[in-house]
Amino acid sequence: MSEAITTDVVIIGAGPVGLFAVFELGLLDLKCHVVDILDRPGGQCTELYPEKPIYDIPGHPVVGAQELIDKLMEQIRPFGPTFHFAQQVEQLERLAEGGFRLVTDAGTEFFAKVVVIAAGGGSFQPKRPPVPGIEAFEATSVFYSVRKMESFAGHDVVIVGGGDSALDWTLNLQPVARRLTLVHRRDDFRGAPHSVEQMRRLVGEGAIDLVIGQVTELAGTDGTLASLTVKKSDGSTVAVAATRMLPFFGLTMKLGPIAGWGLHLHENLIPVDTEKFETSEPGIFAIGDINTYPGKLKLILSGFHEGALMAQAAKRLVDPGKRIVFQYTTSSTALQKKLGVH
Amino acid sequence: MSEAITTDVVIIGAGPVGLFAVFELGLLDLKCHVVDILDRPGGQCTELYPEKPIYDIPGHPVVGAQELIDKLMEQIRPFGPTFHFAQQVEQLERLAEGGFRLVTDAGTEFFAKVVVIAAGGGSFQPKRPPVPGIEAFEATSVFYSVRKMESFAGHDVVIVGGGDSALDWTLNLQPVARRLTLVHRRDDFRGAPHSVEQMRRLVGEGAIDLVIGQVTELAGTDGTLASLTVKKSDGSTVAVAATRMLPFFGLTMKLGPIAGWGLHLHENLIPVDTEKFETSEPGIFAIGDINTYPGKLKLILSGFHEGALMAQAAKRLVDPGKRIVFQYTTSSTALQKKLGVH
Repeated sequence: MSEAITTDVVIIGAGPVGLFAVFELGLLDLKCHVVDILDRPGGQCTELYPEKPIYDIPGHPVVGAQELIDKLMEQIRPFGPTFHFAQQVEQLERLAEGGFRLVTDAGTEFFAKVVVIAAGGGSFQPKRPPVPGIEAFEATSVFYSVRKMESFAGHDVVIVGGGDSALDWTLNLQPVARRLTLVHRRDDFRGAPHSVEQMRRLVGEGAIDLVIGQVTELAGTDGTLASLTVKKSDGSTVAVAATRMLPFFGLTMKLGPIAGWGLHLHENLIPVDTEKFETSEPGIFAIGDINTYPGKLKLILSGFHEGALMAQAAKRLVDPGKRIVFQYTTSSTALQKKLGVH
Repeated sequence: MSEAITTDVVIIGAGPVGLFAVFELGLLDLKCHVVDILDRPGGQCTELYPEKPIYDIPGHPVVGAQELIDKLMEQIRPFGPTFHFAQQVEQLERLAEGGFRLVTDAGTEFFAKVVVIAAGGGSFQPKRPPVPGIEAFEATSVFYSVRKMESFAGHDVVIVGGGDSALDWTLNLQPVARRLTLVHRRDDFRGAPHSVEQMRRLVGEGAIDLVIGQVTELAGTDGTLASLTVKKSDGSTVAVAATRMLPFFGLTMKLGPIAGWGLHLHENLIPVDTEKFETSEPGIFAIGDINTYPGKLKLILSGFHEGALMAQAAKRLVDPGKRIVFQYTTSSTALQKKLGVH
């Protein structure tokens, strides 16, 4: 485990609301570390609908979801937050001397005075396909993402799914795999037309195999996969050599470890007050889609507002002695200096 | 008085928060009329700091105040709000049959189911210079704005002030006035350098007079001004012929008629709940800088959020029977149709 990080604030979630919280906290001189289970900023905006236009961000008649994230990243740059991607905060404990200790599943350890949960609908988790005994092969032969392409070199790779992830990895891993088989339940793909076309050309050339059907059985020993069985629509079955399996059945959102931190919860949401957006645990705030209060709307806009009010409360916790002077970015040279304008 | 206007919502105030309320109400099919005392949209953004950059609008690393207003006007265009500029709502009364009747100082009459007060710091009012008896000449010889230039033709015009308004009207009225005199308390002008230069050239050419000093006395009969007295810094006085006087001493913000509508007030602010942002009077909402609640920050962002939650409550009042389906602009084709996207 690397050395522990000491900071003012740990923000859990790098979606738009977590990003803008960096800005509001930064205006008050609070330093932030941001943890996200995904491998880049943006949360649902980036993961679910990067190309989609959003129409209800004030002052943006239309803005692409990825574009919004890019603008927010630019907006918070002056405050130099540190990101910890592809990690999940698993442990959160209150310290006797004040503040919190957090540890991620990658072993990153934080000591923070304030924790801000901006985890949206929860953490993204790959959906597990309904194949009996698949758990036994996970992390050895069955993977839900590709971290290093080389680890698939020389393997009989079976990719399962019909969307962009399945198609993209089919095209990318075909050159490195010993043999690549794409399995999808029907001969109709949701991915980008160009990717579908490329995949069909490789099938036509005999460079990959395409099997239409559903994986029903895995065979192997001690977590090492050897082959799998695909059941076709006519009821017949076919065995496919497989030492690596990559199912792409989409993502689901789970509250994850947050559920175990002793916070009051209401239907998997975290109740907060509307003055500070603080949870039932002092010093732990919740903003954005993950919180609930009377009138709550799951709008990105609302998460932005919640972050602004939260930041004032966080500042009072981190610097209890200091008087907070409320200033405007338009007129305060002190704020403009922080933003790097002067 | 022209025919009364019947509408879902009257919004008082066309600043950024009032404008975005049109958007949120429009998404829920509510039609809006917007009244503002200024002669164009934007409120303080346009009136006080149009050229200034704003840094804390989420998703805009930097945006000019006027630019933000322009973008909001574009964003609400699909909902076709009707604006009533240069008017102030003076009367607001609750009707026995439900809803409200509003009348402006220009005689515009509305029947509305919901009233939204988005009046910022209140209404802009010109500051009255400290000259004894000036009230007697107001609206006949003393004016605080120029509505029609022709009404100054052939007059001895005295403009008082040292800012952009004083300078701009000096330059504009010089050709139509019989004689124009600019009075300012010191020989130093806050206006744009180019305007100061043009003014000084006219003085040099003898086309206008510049008197450094303070107006101490007005002379005339029955509200008709004839001349005024200027006291110079050395204590001497000078008489200046004046049948029209235009003092430009800046604007001040006053709560105005709102104070007389029976709403609970707290230090000239309107207390609201944080679920609906409704005032003490059901059906009358207050959003933006004019309201107050625990944690309130006078941020444009917060007014945007308040407008979104207010809109849900307004919809329930206007269409009590209808179930509100919460939808996203990103995914709802129904909303996109309203926005004119499809």
